Amino acid sequence: MTTTTSPRLDLSIDAVALTRAICDVESVSGNERELADAVETALRELPWLEVLRDGDAIVARTNLGRAERVVVAGHLDTVPVAANLPTWTEGEGDGLVLHGRGTVDMKGGVAVQLRVAATTPEPTRDVTWVFYDHEEVEGWRNGLGRLTRDHPEWVAGDFAVLCEPTGGAVEGGCQGTMRIDITIPGVAAHSARAWMGHNAIHDAGHVLTRLQAYDAREVEVEGLVYREGLSAVGIRGGIAGNVVPDLCVVSVNYRFAPDKSVEDAEAHLRDVFTGFDVIVTDAAPGAHPGLDHPAAAAFVAVIGREPRAKYGWTDVSRFSALGIPAVNYGPGDPSLAHRDDEHVPAGQIYECERVLREWLTA
Amino acid sequence: MTTTTSPRLDLSIDAVALTRAICDVESVSGNERELADAVETALRELPWLEVLRDGDAIVARTNLGRAERVVVAGHLDTVPVAANLPTWTEGEGDGLVLHGRGTVDMKGGVAVQLRVAATTPEPTRDVTWVFYDHEEVEGWRNGLGRLTRDHPEWVAGDFAVLCEPTGGAVEGGCQGTMRIDITIPGVAAHSARAWMGHNAIHDAGHVLTRLQAYDAREVEVEGLVYREGLSAVGIRGGIAGNVVPDLCVVSVNYRFAPDKSVEDAEAHLRDVFTGFDVIVTDAAPGAHPGLDHPAAAAFVAVIGREPRAKYGWTDVSRFSALGIPAVNYGPGDPSLAHRDDEHVPAGQIYECERVLREWLTA
Repeated sequence: MTTTTSPRLDLSIDAVALTRAICDVESVSGNERELADAVETALRELPWLEVLRDGDAIVARTNLGRAERVVVAGHLDTVPVAANLPTWTEGEGDGLVLHGRGTVDMKGGVAVQLRVAATTPEPTRDVTWVFYDHEEVEGWRNGLGRLTRDHPEWVAGDFAVLCEPTGGAVEGGCQGTMRIDITIPGVAAHSARAWMGHNAIHDAGHVLTRLQAYDAREVEVEGLVYREGLSAVGIRGGIAGNVVPDLCVVSVNYRFAPDKSVEDAEAHLRDVFTGFDVIVTDAAPGAHPGLDHPAAAAFVAVIGREPRAKYGWTDVSRFSALGIPAVNYGPGDPSLAHRDDEHVPAGQIYECERVLREWLTA
Repeated sequence: MTTTTSPRLDLSIDAVALTRAICDVESVSGNERELADAVETALRELPWLEVLRDGDAIVARTNLGRAERVVVAGHLDTVPVAANLPTWTEGEGDGLVLHGRGTVDMKGGVAVQLRVAATTPEPTRDVTWVFYDHEEVEGWRNGLGRLTRDHPEWVAGDFAVLCEPTGGAVEGGCQGTMRIDITIPGVAAHSARAWMGHNAIHDAGHVLTRLQAYDAREVEVEGLVYREGLSAVGIRGGIAGNVVPDLCVVSVNYRFAPDKSVEDAEAHLRDVFTGFDVIVTDAAPGAHPGLDHPAAAAFVAVIGREPRAKYGWTDVSRFSALGIPAVNYGPGDPSLAHRDDEHVPAGQIYECERVLREWLTA
């Protein structure tokens, strides 16, 4: 859905109304242009911001020479619409709830970014506001990834907040992920004379037994507890109903706390599966929560809630790869993301706006 | 390869020369017509035989009113030729070896059938000679299967010998086969939060452990020892690299001695895999060796070697399904069947001819 006239975003309206306006500009991944244009236009009206653009990613920053620079980022795209646009509301006052695609993931966060950007001309920390495209699709398309590759100086800073939905809590860092294939050899034979072969699938039982017995760590990193996991995510073997199979492959996914490097993770898996042929097929590092940084500590203090660990892999890792500690913080229950009934209490949007503004002005 | 003039088979030549003549009429499955025509023509010249035909299957029988009727059967087709026709020989005298497609599987046996049919006008047991098509392809095309369905009276008898290669030993009966799928359920979850799901592949480890621990029986049936087998022949599970799988399916093939019925076999597998969801996907009964039958005992006595069990599923089961005990007996090492270098010692062909003739005339 595109229109010839770009919608205008009025950043003077309240954050919930702005969230609705942003959600109602459909921007499924690959179709962010219209919303990106509107965001760029609105930001260019704020004289205290330098505005940069790469594709459908917009970067706007203050240049006040503050001692610290913080980055506040959010993506403009959503998963496909499921008859849940335009947005609608239920209830009123403190019970007001906003329904529709993007209300959770993550246009509430984007609205808060824009509201605070528009109302904080002299933040106590220099701020870089990042709005990017293609977060909900393959990682190589990711707009934040493109910025970190092509314009790392645009997204540089001392600490970053990614406004993904966390229900208003700070979720620090993220776990790393590694995938391996364990190949179990055998000797083929006709199944009528099974004793002349060696069954690779039967032997795979030893791998599965180790997986069953594996005691996943709970690891405290900078005050947050990460819960690791080691899961078979695939198994295949066998070529015909009368052949003892000479090959079985078990695919395993390891999610590891950010105190481990990718190299540590591989060494650990080779230890767990000693005696088996292990090939690493995919890996991405975790990200430290960075909560020992002064800007992070100040941020957590404003929120007044205990931070917690982030389990999934998120774009905070892209900041981490640049050496920038990063956390997730935003309105909306993350378990409602991508659901057809995605909805957010208005109060979470207002609270998020209050926190960001207080952090940047205190 | 077809010719407009059918080759003539001269049944007065010696069995090895006749084997060569038969091999040199190419008859890969589906192309048996020319050889079947030649066999029919040759048999019709023998006045003591009633000759019947269905497609490319030929049945020829004596009708002497003997107390017993025995069936001697062989297939006319071969697997595809692999630059191993026409036949050739190596050595001479007792060391003569015959090379080429069909020499083992099983035109040596067919030549012996024809030689004994042509030279035994008054057998002490009535004999039904069966020559059939489509043994080397899908079971539903099998010519012996077609005869047992459409003309069961043509192949009726008290005991049957199938002249498949056994290296000159009697291989009695055959094992049954059953395939099952064991479905292991789980609860899907994101692999970053594996503890919120239940991993079906991990649970499949319990099935594989039972397979590893399974102690396959060796069973004596009518004096022959059958060795059973229980083999995983397939396993599959997993839908994506970041999902704890909610389903894993293990396919298992059970080969069971002919003292067990299909129902017994199913009950046994349900016992072995108690607690798991078992579905039978395929089953075929075994066949008793039938060596307690007088005609069989007389046959074994002529051979003068200990009979042994047949492990694979063979067409003897088709006789067994009609209530006719049956054994495999023929020239050629069965492990050379289907190989490009298939070859047979001439002595095995002569010995087989001697045995069949003595059995039918003593």
